[in-house]
Amino acid sequence: MKYLAAPALFLALATSASAEAGPMTITRSGSHPVQRTPAANCTGDVRFIQLAPVSSPHRSSSTSVTFARGARTAWHSHPGGQTLVVTSGTGWIQAWGEKRQEIRVGDTIWTPPGVKHWHGATATAGMTHLTIQGIVDGRVVDWNEKVSDEQYK
Amino acid sequence: MKYLAAPALFLALATSASAEAGPMTITRSGSHPVQRTPAANCTGDVRFIQLAPVSSPHRSSSTSVTFARGARTAWHSHPGGQTLVVTSGTGWIQAWGEKRQEIRVGDTIWTPPGVKHWHGATATAGMTHLTIQGIVDGRVVDWNEKVSDEQYK
Repeated sequence: MKYLAAPALFLALATSASAEAGPMTITRSGSHPVQRTPAANCTGDVRFIQLAPVSSPHRSSSTSVTFARGARTAWHSHPGGQTLVVTSGTGWIQAWGEKRQEIRVGDTIWTPPGVKHWHGATATAGMTHLTIQGIVDGRVVDWNEKVSDEQYK
Repeated sequence: MKYLAAPALFLALATSASAEAGPMTITRSGSHPVQRTPAANCTGDVRFIQLAPVSSPHRSSSTSVTFARGARTAWHSHPGGQTLVVTSGTGWIQAWGEKRQEIRVGDTIWTPPGVKHWHGATATAGMTHLTIQGIVDGRVVDWNEKVSDEQYK
């Protein structure tokens, strides 16, 4: 499958246990289910694994998301803001009303609460990033309309 | 400097802005200060960069920590628990009263609140991991005694 060709880090990442109590838990590389982002919330092939669940005692959730080239989220915002860390490839990110910017491995992006934006791969290269988002009233994201091809390019 | 020879991902990671409001902020790879873990809280060469600050609206903080071979944290616990994601190298982790375990790239470790433990590099290889820890009463960690050479090996 296509996503198996994605960078090793993405394949390797796995979730932590969601239980608040109990012993230390190690989830080995590659052993966690890869999930697909629902089509309503993205364009193209977008897959992720959950690193820290929304029920986390961290009060934040964390994922690793891989976008195939051309793939991107829909427009959206985060009620608790979001930190992204690009771990592989090259991507694009754009806040509403601002210019699209290229993001590369090691770049970190802070999107404040409520700022409408999208992120994804470039048209020619895939991209993987880690995400950390605050949980506000049980929510980590508010979805809006899709990013049109005109907006994307 | 020695840490400059560390894996690219570590060097590349950078912090997000701490402001809750304002525009999206991109911190470029390599542009964030590398900090040293205080000697009281570790053994050997342990350096980190802050990805999401303790004042984060995420209600969790996040760092990338690099351990030179032989280096490790002191024994400690996290009032809000901690998720680790190994991003480079090979390390060891041990919960109090349990066996030491080896952790490798892509492994994810969940340590529940209050569980006393340590983590670090192996005796022969460095290790870098991302961390996400919950903030409880402004604290992300409670430090204990150092890990002796006997405990480490």
